[in-house]
Amino acid sequence: MTTTQVTYAIQDEYADDYSFCYGCGKLNADGLHIRTGWIGDKTVTIFHPRKEHTAIPGFVYGGLIASIIDCHGTGSAALALHRKNGHEPGDGIEPPRFVTASLHVDFLKPTPHETPLKLVGTVEEVHPKKWIVHTELFAGDTCCVKGEVVAALMPKTMMK
Amino acid sequence: MTTTQVTYAIQDEYADDYSFCYGCGKLNADGLHIRTGWIGDKTVTIFHPRKEHTAIPGFVYGGLIASIIDCHGTGSAALALHRKNGHEPGDGIEPPRFVTASLHVDFLKPTPHETPLKLVGTVEEVHPKKWIVHTELFAGDTCCVKGEVVAALMPKTMMK
Repeated sequence: MTTTQVTYAIQDEYADDYSFCYGCGKLNADGLHIRTGWIGDKTVTIFHPRKEHTAIPGFVYGGLIASIIDCHGTGSAALALHRKNGHEPGDGIEPPRFVTASLHVDFLKPTPHETPLKLVGTVEEVHPKKWIVHTELFAGDTCCVKGEVVAALMPKTMMK
Repeated sequence: MTTTQVTYAIQDEYADDYSFCYGCGKLNADGLHIRTGWIGDKTVTIFHPRKEHTAIPGFVYGGLIASIIDCHGTGSAALALHRKNGHEPGDGIEPPRFVTASLHVDFLKPTPHETPLKLVGTVEEVHPKKWIVHTELFAGDTCCVKGEVVAALMPKTMMK
């Protein structure tokens, strides 16, 4: 899987009023602009860490990695439910929104800072309002981190 | 526990060469400057989310919360081993450094954006090179998030 960018990202179609997430909101000027799309039946995010996203010099900050896994997870769940409903990013239909119920990250080895990161997700439906996203984070061909997000459909109480 | 700031933080005494962590490095100009100290036998971090650290409007971004729990965790493990070795932050002795082996975050309820966050940690020694930090994150008196960090003493291979 040699993709270097995501063409149709689910976050591009989130409603403007809910596009200010620091991780993946297209309208958060200071944010990370994480973008997640399908490649076959896997979800993919490509991310280029900024210079300041360092841990020990030479390695990527773990909290940033957790952040990417988090938004990749909720985005992947949104992709999956959207597809189940007959839609794909790019078709202009507003997708469902998920929030993170829990996040687990295993740092298998230090993640080098000089390469773009590729996250590959496998989505598992628990029930229509609850999905689990299993993610592997690669720097080049090396899987450095594994993550798991339990994503829940956003409760109406969080929307205005 | 009404503390509003941490006076003696372990991160203030990390060696300059390893003080560029985006989360807690005192020398990372763009970083979060997370600071963690003792209050009795609990570890405490106080953090004021920036305006851009939003999720859905009104609530704090989960990836930021994961980041604070991460650095609070490694800082708490460093505090604990440092104390076991007879030292306290403020005495000018360079503390041990830890890295995150795994991070788990349970988002119990949305975290409101308008209040400073207080993280309270309980540190458990597994063996001298491996500690578990259990953290509760409070907004006001409400515990919104629980986290667990498994912290490992930094391997020499990560140091130059």
